[in-house]
Amino acid sequence: MKEYKKSKLNSVKRGANRATYDIEKINTILDAGFIGYVSYNFQGKAIAIPMAYGRKGNKIILHGSNANRMLTSLLEAKEMSMTVMHLDALVLARSGFHHSVNYRSATLFGTCKKIEDKEEKNDALFCFMEHMMKGRWNGIREMNNEEFERTLVVEMTIETASAKIRDVGVADEPEDYNLDVWAGLIPIKQIATYPIPDKGKPESMEIPQHVLDYYEQNK
Amino acid sequence: MKEYKKSKLNSVKRGANRATYDIEKINTILDAGFIGYVSYNFQGKAIAIPMAYGRKGNKIILHGSNANRMLTSLLEAKEMSMTVMHLDALVLARSGFHHSVNYRSATLFGTCKKIEDKEEKNDALFCFMEHMMKGRWNGIREMNNEEFERTLVVEMTIETASAKIRDVGVADEPEDYNLDVWAGLIPIKQIATYPIPDKGKPESMEIPQHVLDYYEQNK
Repeated sequence: MKEYKKSKLNSVKRGANRATYDIEKINTILDAGFIGYVSYNFQGKAIAIPMAYGRKGNKIILHGSNANRMLTSLLEAKEMSMTVMHLDALVLARSGFHHSVNYRSATLFGTCKKIEDKEEKNDALFCFMEHMMKGRWNGIREMNNEEFERTLVVEMTIETASAKIRDVGVADEPEDYNLDVWAGLIPIKQIATYPIPDKGKPESMEIPQHVLDYYEQNK
Repeated sequence: MKEYKKSKLNSVKRGANRATYDIEKINTILDAGFIGYVSYNFQGKAIAIPMAYGRKGNKIILHGSNANRMLTSLLEAKEMSMTVMHLDALVLARSGFHHSVNYRSATLFGTCKKIEDKEEKNDALFCFMEHMMKGRWNGIREMNNEEFERTLVVEMTIETASAKIRDVGVADEPEDYNLDVWAGLIPIKQIATYPIPDKGKPESMEIPQHVLDYYEQNK
C-alpha cells in the first residue's frame, strides 16, 4: 500500500490540490518533528493536547503517567487522531485575502491500545527516544522497575491519514501584480541552538556525538 | 479578574506545579505565536486542526472559507477549545524517565459565534492580520465584496483556560548526579529568515519597515 484510502473521515475538502494521502510523504512529515496534537473527548468536549511521539512503521508511540487523563480517555475510546504541523513561511500577498502560510501538516486516524508486554513496552520506549534523538538511549541510566511500572505506553496504529502541504510562493489575483505592494515570503523554521550542559559532571565532560549530531542537523 | 476560575474542565492534573491560570501569562503565550490547534468533533471523533488566529482581549479570531468543515462544526456546537504550544528546549536527563521538554502551552475553552456585522467582521480581520504581522494591513489592496462575502469569520470568547510552562533545567534523581552521563538542554526556537521578495515589482522595491521589523524580532 502506497496511499491511505480516502474516506469521509480523512478526505481533505478545502484546498484539495494541496492534499496528499501518500504514506511515505506523510511519514516524512511525522519524522520531521516529535510533537503532535492529540485530540480527545472530555465530557463531550474535544480537546487537543500536545504530546511527544515516536514513530515506527505505521505505529505511533505515546507515553505518560498511568494517571494521564488524556491517555486513559484514549484507551477507553480505543481510537484516536493526531495532527502534526510544521510552519515553513509567512506568505505575504498583495491582498489580505491571499495571505497564507507555507506548511506541512499530517492528520492521522487510528486505533490505540496500552502496551502491557514488558519487552514490547521497552521496545516502544526505545522507539520513542530514538525518534526524538537518535543515539540517546544508549549510555543513559537504565529505567528501574518503579519507573517502568509508573509509565503508561500507548501505541496508535495509523489506519488512515491525510496531509496538506503548501510550499509555493505568493498566489495573487492576476490584476494585482501591477500594484505597488511589497509581496513575498518570510521563511520560518524551528532550530536548535548550542547544547547547554547541566551543572556537575557534564560541565567538564565532552558533549557526546549524538547530541552534537542533533545540534548540527537542526541548527 | 486576574485568573481564570478552575473547574474540572481546565484544571491541570499532571504536573500541576507547572500550571498557571493567570490571564496575563496565558495572553503572553497566545501572543508569542499565531498557530493554534482547534479541536472539533466529526462524527463523534475528536480532530485537531492547526489554524492561524488573532487575539484581542479575551476574543480569538479564526477565519476560513464559508464551507470550512471545522468552522461550520464549531458554529453548530457553539463552543470550542484551542491549544497553543511553543517548544523551548529538549531536556536531556541522566535517566530516560526524566527526559523532558521545556515549553509554554495554553489551552482555551469558550463559546464561539459567526461574525455577521460588516464593521465587526472588518475589525476582526484587521485584528487577525495585526496579530500575525503588525503593520501589514495598511498598504495592501483592500478586500473586495466577493472576498469579504466568501470569508467566514469566527470569534471565540475565552471563558476559561489554563497554561503549563516548563522552563527549568534537568531534574534528575539525586543519586544519578554521580553518573558519567552527559545531561543538559538543547534550546529550540522558531525563527524567521530574511524576507524573499515575490517576482515582479517587489524585486526592485525596498522591503517595507513592518516586514523588516518582523524579521528583526524573530530572526
